[in-house]
Amino acid sequence: MIVELINTGSELLLGRVLNTHQQWLCRRLSDAGYVVSRQVAIGDTAPEIERAVREALGRADLVITTGGLGPTSDDVTRDVIAGMLGKSLIEDKSVLARIESFFIQRSRPIPARSQVEALVPEGATVLPNLHGTAPGLAIEVRPDSFRSDGQGSWLIMLPGPPRELRPMFTDFAMPLLARVMPPQIFVCRTVRTSGLGETTVQEQIEEPLRALVGRGLELGYCARPGQVDVRFAVRGSDAAKLVAEAEAILRACVGGNIFGIDDQLLEGAIVHLLTERKQTLSVAESCTGGGIADRLTNVPGASAVLLGGFVTYSDQMKQAQLGVRADTLRQHGAVSEAVAGEMAEGARRATQSHYAIAVTGIAGPGGGTPEKPVGTVFIAVASDRGTSVVKMFNPWDRLTFKEVTACQALNQLRLQLLSR
Amino acid sequence: MIVELINTGSELLLGRVLNTHQQWLCRRLSDAGYVVSRQVAIGDTAPEIERAVREALGRADLVITTGGLGPTSDDVTRDVIAGMLGKSLIEDKSVLARIESFFIQRSRPIPARSQVEALVPEGATVLPNLHGTAPGLAIEVRPDSFRSDGQGSWLIMLPGPPRELRPMFTDFAMPLLARVMPPQIFVCRTVRTSGLGETTVQEQIEEPLRALVGRGLELGYCARPGQVDVRFAVRGSDAAKLVAEAEAILRACVGGNIFGIDDQLLEGAIVHLLTERKQTLSVAESCTGGGIADRLTNVPGASAVLLGGFVTYSDQMKQAQLGVRADTLRQHGAVSEAVAGEMAEGARRATQSHYAIAVTGIAGPGGGTPEKPVGTVFIAVASDRGTSVVKMFNPWDRLTFKEVTACQALNQLRLQLLSR
Repeated sequence: MIVELINTGSELLLGRVLNTHQQWLCRRLSDAGYVVSRQVAIGDTAPEIERAVREALGRADLVITTGGLGPTSDDVTRDVIAGMLGKSLIEDKSVLARIESFFIQRSRPIPARSQVEALVPEGATVLPNLHGTAPGLAIEVRPDSFRSDGQGSWLIMLPGPPRELRPMFTDFAMPLLARVMPPQIFVCRTVRTSGLGETTVQEQIEEPLRALVGRGLELGYCARPGQVDVRFAVRGSDAAKLVAEAEAILRACVGGNIFGIDDQLLEGAIVHLLTERKQTLSVAESCTGGGIADRLTNVPGASAVLLGGFVTYSDQMKQAQLGVRADTLRQHGAVSEAVAGEMAEGARRATQSHYAIAVTGIAGPGGGTPEKPVGTVFIAVASDRGTSVVKMFNPWDRLTFKEVTACQALNQLRLQLLSR
Repeated sequence: MIVELINTGSELLLGRVLNTHQQWLCRRLSDAGYVVSRQVAIGDTAPEIERAVREALGRADLVITTGGLGPTSDDVTRDVIAGMLGKSLIEDKSVLARIESFFIQRSRPIPARSQVEALVPEGATVLPNLHGTAPGLAIEVRPDSFRSDGQGSWLIMLPGPPRELRPMFTDFAMPLLARVMPPQIFVCRTVRTSGLGETTVQEQIEEPLRALVGRGLELGYCARPGQVDVRFAVRGSDAAKLVAEAEAILRACVGGNIFGIDDQLLEGAIVHLLTERKQTLSVAESCTGGGIADRLTNVPGASAVLLGGFVTYSDQMKQAQLGVRADTLRQHGAVSEAVAGEMAEGARRATQSHYAIAVTGIAGPGGGTPEKPVGTVFIAVASDRGTSVVKMFNPWDRLTFKEVTACQALNQLRLQLLSR
């Protein structure tokens, strides 16, 4: 089954907004067994839309468009597609009534142009819009219209705003698809690792997984700052079994580095582990400047785990807030194993937390020396078992440095939590 | 000039990652006068890559691909394109030396497969990778190869990781483009505001700008969490003048809300203002959990300005670290005007900073009450002129809440800085 996605909107091609529809729709579709083979973004003009839709209908069983269904002059998708398919547009009374009640509910006058949103190509299925005015539309395209193999297709038009598109797709488009084009079996699972480079991960798992690849396992890698994702995808009735076998092999090879599955985050794993154990954490950050606390507090429920955070750039703050000794700073410098250790111990003492993480390093672009170049960082974890410090070297740009260092610090804590 | 962008990566079509390349590259290209007319995302397989590149070369003057240049088995772009163009791959000694020194610098063994990254199609220009191993490649495609109009094209291949792609594109691809295909005149300027909603901004400027729109000004809006961007774009020889006139009108209408131009960030404006005045800042965060400090410390030079940060979720930490009084907490609750004020004053006292920001609120999803629903937040700014507190209501999801609140807090400080 071939699925293609067309996103319309000149703002996409001018780079003014991020195309979140692509990821969201591709993810929902692939989770349901419909794998998108091509996504295209084009401007808002009629010729571009017609060309892209025509090309896609020449190849695909299912074509989904986003955008261009609203009331303004650059919303032309509905007209273009009705024209292409030779279908006239008919005012749908129930859609019109829904649009009118949308405005009445909000005590706003009904804009004249809103009526165009009630125009429906003849024979199309209306996908109700519960969070806006323009409905989505689904049309079965006759066999022999566009494809050289003489097959028919389905064409689904969705509105642009994410808060309208997402519930409409979930509540109305997916059930329609399940009925008119039941999906193939497809299992996709991403296993997320931290602490190894992309090449190292591949070297360790490629050979052990070779036999499964021969049996249909698709293997993908995605490297991000501080982590490497390994993705397994399989089609067909054996899919779940093959993916489970692959994951077992992966765990045997790099199990200690695996922190999560699919969308799980390192910070989520930590909040989860600590919550489960009823233990607490504090964070003392120099070079990551609050980035570790920020990531942890993105996780709902983090407040039960994270007792406190300290951003201590200056020597003076390291002493005042964390009790780092002036002697240690003088002897070893602020970016040192000894200071990282004292920072972690100080945070733990100040907050009475079970664990404390501390980082001190040189994020750059300035501040490096020959002995401690930009990218040097010390990461400490303190607990009742004492304090351990690792030295890392992350010679990236400032933001990547912060992100990689935060990952490494969270991963150090994760490893300590797992070791008991 | 027709420009097309091809993003390769099965993870994009499986919806496992967001395609940030599209926005970033489209933005850089359009800012420089090259407007992308089509963006395509396809999987990592050789036939898909070949088909998409062939189609794009049949239409475009410039085709840019991203991804597929790395060392793993799903990286096939280099091979596919060299094959299509009938060019052999030759090991480039200087690229190989750079790859080797990359690993030596990091005290890591050189993986055997890394050598494939030193293979360069004959005649291609190497775009050095200063932040990774795989270089980018630029190839001039002979006239009469793919296009029915007999024109030639340029094909640029960029690596997938953003931290490698971005500096490579800026430092090496853009100068090459400026030389081999000088752009049309196109001026695009984004003016960034904070503190007003999108509709309000539009209502205030639409009428005053109408005459300029008649003369060719394209006007765009982009609302993001906590800020609204206004975009001016003009083509042709009058472009710079028209954009300058538009900006003057905008400043007359909403000048106080403007914090930056193009990619300037609110946190950058603050670090800049404080640095200029040789003044310092501290931050006390409850519900933003380090997010404000994190943003500030993304700005190079922030260490001279930000004396310290405190993440104090619990009442106990608010008392111990910031000196918030038990009485105040008991009487008003942790999410209150009084506590926000005492937090800011406490942070200022503890760090001896000129200014302090504090936030306390309910990020959700849990923790709301009828009087203080999820989204309630108090933002305080303390200085030698006293302490001011504003109450805001940001009833969004947890991450958007944190982002909007951080923006509002930074904007409160910005307004205070500007008022003297």
